[in-house]
Amino acid sequence: MAIDYATIRTTLDFYLNDWLEIDRLCERPRFADHGPETFSGVLDLCERLAAERFEPFNRLVDTEEPHFDGTHVSLPAATELACKAYAESGMLAAAQDADIGGMQLPCTVEMAANSFFSAASIGIRGYSMLTVANANLLMAHGSERQRRVFAHPQFEGRWFGTMNLSEPQAGSSLSDIATRAVPDGDGYASDPLGPRYRISGRKMWISGGEHAMGENIVHLVLAKIPDPEGRLPAGTKGISLFIVPKFNVDADGRLTGERNDVSLAGLNHKLGYRGTVNTLLNYGEGGGAVGYRVGDAGFGLTYMFHMMNEARIHVGLGAAMLGMAGYLESRDYAFQRPQGRPVKLGRGAGKDAAQEPVLIARHPDVRRMLVAQRSYGEGAVALCLLCSRLVDEEHTGTGGAALEAKALLEMLTPIAKSWPSEWCLEANSMAIQVLGGYGYTRDFPVEQHWRDNRLNMIHEGTHGIQAMDLLGRKVVMENGEPFRLLLRRMRETVAAASELDRLLPLASELGGALLRLEHATVLAWASGSAPEALANATAYLRAFGHVVMGWIWLDVARAAIQAGNSERRSSGFVEAKIVAARYFIFHELPLVEAWLRPVEQCDRIWLDLPAEAV
Amino acid sequence: MAIDYATIRTTLDFYLNDWLEIDRLCERPRFADHGPETFSGVLDLCERLAAERFEPFNRLVDTEEPHFDGTHVSLPAATELACKAYAESGMLAAAQDADIGGMQLPCTVEMAANSFFSAASIGIRGYSMLTVANANLLMAHGSERQRRVFAHPQFEGRWFGTMNLSEPQAGSSLSDIATRAVPDGDGYASDPLGPRYRISGRKMWISGGEHAMGENIVHLVLAKIPDPEGRLPAGTKGISLFIVPKFNVDADGRLTGERNDVSLAGLNHKLGYRGTVNTLLNYGEGGGAVGYRVGDAGFGLTYMFHMMNEARIHVGLGAAMLGMAGYLESRDYAFQRPQGRPVKLGRGAGKDAAQEPVLIARHPDVRRMLVAQRSYGEGAVALCLLCSRLVDEEHTGTGGAALEAKALLEMLTPIAKSWPSEWCLEANSMAIQVLGGYGYTRDFPVEQHWRDNRLNMIHEGTHGIQAMDLLGRKVVMENGEPFRLLLRRMRETVAAASELDRLLPLASELGGALLRLEHATVLAWASGSAPEALANATAYLRAFGHVVMGWIWLDVARAAIQAGNSERRSSGFVEAKIVAARYFIFHELPLVEAWLRPVEQCDRIWLDLPAEAV
Repeated sequence: MAIDYATIRTTLDFYLNDWLEIDRLCERPRFADHGPETFSGVLDLCERLAAERFEPFNRLVDTEEPHFDGTHVSLPAATELACKAYAESGMLAAAQDADIGGMQLPCTVEMAANSFFSAASIGIRGYSMLTVANANLLMAHGSERQRRVFAHPQFEGRWFGTMNLSEPQAGSSLSDIATRAVPDGDGYASDPLGPRYRISGRKMWISGGEHAMGENIVHLVLAKIPDPEGRLPAGTKGISLFIVPKFNVDADGRLTGERNDVSLAGLNHKLGYRGTVNTLLNYGEGGGAVGYRVGDAGFGLTYMFHMMNEARIHVGLGAAMLGMAGYLESRDYAFQRPQGRPVKLGRGAGKDAAQEPVLIARHPDVRRMLVAQRSYGEGAVALCLLCSRLVDEEHTGTGGAALEAKALLEMLTPIAKSWPSEWCLEANSMAIQVLGGYGYTRDFPVEQHWRDNRLNMIHEGTHGIQAMDLLGRKVVMENGEPFRLLLRRMRETVAAASELDRLLPLASELGGALLRLEHATVLAWASGSAPEALANATAYLRAFGHVVMGWIWLDVARAAIQAGNSERRSSGFVEAKIVAARYFIFHELPLVEAWLRPVEQCDRIWLDLPAEAV
Repeated sequence: MAIDYATIRTTLDFYLNDWLEIDRLCERPRFADHGPETFSGVLDLCERLAAERFEPFNRLVDTEEPHFDGTHVSLPAATELACKAYAESGMLAAAQDADIGGMQLPCTVEMAANSFFSAASIGIRGYSMLTVANANLLMAHGSERQRRVFAHPQFEGRWFGTMNLSEPQAGSSLSDIATRAVPDGDGYASDPLGPRYRISGRKMWISGGEHAMGENIVHLVLAKIPDPEGRLPAGTKGISLFIVPKFNVDADGRLTGERNDVSLAGLNHKLGYRGTVNTLLNYGEGGGAVGYRVGDAGFGLTYMFHMMNEARIHVGLGAAMLGMAGYLESRDYAFQRPQGRPVKLGRGAGKDAAQEPVLIARHPDVRRMLVAQRSYGEGAVALCLLCSRLVDEEHTGTGGAALEAKALLEMLTPIAKSWPSEWCLEANSMAIQVLGGYGYTRDFPVEQHWRDNRLNMIHEGTHGIQAMDLLGRKVVMENGEPFRLLLRRMRETVAAASELDRLLPLASELGGALLRLEHATVLAWASGSAPEALANATAYLRAFGHVVMGWIWLDVARAAIQAGNSERRSSGFVEAKIVAARYFIFHELPLVEAWLRPVEQCDRIWLDLPAEAV
């Protein structure tokens, strides 16, 4: 059974055209050469590539996981072919300026187009995502020559890129990294490629850290520059960012033929996401890897977060598309598998065995699992596309609108990262359940989706980190103004949806949840003490996420009804959106109240706990 | 890192001695030869066997999954050695009469002792569980000779046993099985081993269906006896039960040297639980497998459910122990891994990088994940042991008490099966999260726990089936009397806990949830129509399960305080139980209200759904 790309496409088209109205972006100078046809052409191309080059090999890259023989890392040939086809499509430079060979696409369209690859094979997709993120960072913060030498070959698909943050002893805690960068001789500051250092240390969890694809790998490495006494500065403010190529290059980016002092210490053998090789890298075992500083010393984490925020939306969209893939697979199955009979009318749960078996899609509990999956998957896709639309607004909108977009994006990023990671994993578990015993076998893809998706709550900032970011930073930043802006936007949706008879009860339900969330936020910070406020941050994150998703679904349902009224969408399409919104708001949103209770009460349970009670 | 068996043992000892007061069982004639020392000796033995023979091979049986070369199924040698050691311990006959070589142990002690094996390697444990369940069924419903020929060799560990219910086209829907049993010649009724039939058909998802361990495999097979026109009777009432040995035997149970007509069609390659071989079996490809009917024709499902109800508690306990294993592993990790710093006092979520990193067990969110895991794991163990205590009461109690125990057991069985399967899976996911990236690798056991545990919501009656059983049958049977009995018992606990200052707020919370559950049950059935009542059965199951677990925790906390007052338990031990109860009742129980909403409203969403909205 192949993925039903048509359903994905219809969903994306509706979000892009009817909900986010991306045609308006074409009025802006940057996107003036684009129109519905070019956008549609990109989606067509990516859908086809994903179906032909990615999906058929998704199980293969899981079973034939990356292998290290002590000298080389080997990947299945299909991985390299898929990456080549992706590069040839031009998608690596989809959002770049035309004058460097880019398509100058809006981020919204780029994200939507890339979502096909995540559904088809998240493991193979990893390489291009990392490469583009790496090159984007260099375009934003690198020197002109760094951009030309290190970023452009990545957009061309000749080189690959990685991000090196974690170390074995420091995962989420970047302030504790111990990788050192020492100025490389007296002339270190005059290297045309940037201030030159020698890097030494160990980097853990590095995706794409070693393989034989492409001509080179550009590692972006966080490290600390020791003070004259050789001590590393404490905290995150002492972190700088370095470009460390796998193979050394001259000032014009030509390979010198020398290998840099970066070596593979080992591969991590993962539960899922096996298509993306994940490595432990040793820097400087032979005296120090050559690295070129990006920007100013001490700003490494700031630069990295430029990339990280985009990466977090990508993680969310990847999780969302795994959710969609599982939903579509289990829906197909439910409409093909006959089993059981409807419950008989009257008292007692009996069934009439004389009747023919029905398709399992008839059973209420199977329907529940399918609609819940859709509400998670499609809802998460909507949230991530909204975030990418905010990126476009931040970059190409006018003053006030751009600033508002930036503020909303910062508010929503922890949700876009965490909510799909948590709930589309749950969706994947439901897909297994719909298939029953078959879902538990490796003959169907749903078990792999579930394993692959489990990573998303961990990488690019764990769930707990997102919770601290949201309650500890985002809702209180700028005196809470961005939070109030988000609340206003959500209330505008409540008001608009209240005008529609079918959405009025849903709008009223969301309105209540908004009040509760706002109130809980005040109560959480009532003591003014961060440890108390943040003690129940994860419960707050869950509640906040569900409120945001209630808002998304209410607004999506509103847009669907509007599109139906103007006959741009069928009544069946509109009905499906209303059902998902109704399910989410009536069956899921009430959970918010329960999650917020310990937040409102500033429950000190986790602070006062004796060690033996853990 | 090995499993911390000492914590498991302390937990079991407390439940058995302080909470369930099993010493009182020794006053009964059946258990008169037992006392605290013999019970303790059995637990010692099983703890040691699990640690030495099961746990060291748990990863091995996952990576070297059963292999079929077209002729033989091969398992790792460790599996056979572990099964032999288990058989030699006498645990296969732990609950059997002394006069057939059994230990005549209470079911409660048997279950508690076996729980070590589930924690150590659920995959290896599968073989003995199935074998005992098979033999138990024969002891209850087989003829004297069937018991001697087919059950006794299983208790001795010479033969293995399986259960054959599902077929490829009929998983949960047993009324649709198509395996046939035709009387084997005119003298079929006079075979000393029981009425002899020829069996043909295909059986799917058969655990332990083929391997080379032991001398024989006893398959218990559900099949239908065709009418004179060759038609199979409709529904479950047409199902009979047959003994089909892998190797034929004579009237005294000696192997004839002939292989019966049962063959392996293939192995199922699973997501987890790989230590237990799972098969598709073909019966009667060579003309019909010899099978001996158990009991009366048409009562096959009734007999099978005798076994199934016990199996469901075993599934629950297995899920619970996987939850415990993940909890203990992640707790060990959290007390060894330094990372990050406490949040600083005052506004803002900043941390003081100049301080030394702390153990992650200090972080509130890690504590939350550990306590939540403990509340799920230990709570689920308590529930399953309570059920086994009810089995003992049903079998050895006096008239009224035995009948009440039977009624409570029937009420609680769907919860004992479903609740640990759902929430200890969630616990296993939290264990992964505590370990972060390391938890996602196969270097730690937590990812395997999570994969192994995912089966438990599927086999022995899916989650949805448990929900229909609970709301469609259990709460309404006997005019609702067993349900009211359970409510009375829970209210007695509320009353008793209300006497204790520290538990009063918890008791009051549970009291509210009980009212809500009782009311929702009435509302669900208000229309008197089964399809409407059952439309939200799974939401009801979740709510019911959490209420039961709230009750369990309140009662466990009460018993802990009592044990603390009489100085049988340390204050740290008591505190840990109160913390878990407090977490569960204040942070989890409030979810009940949200889950019950669609039940109370008899939300018709799943009944009225157009196909395109699924």
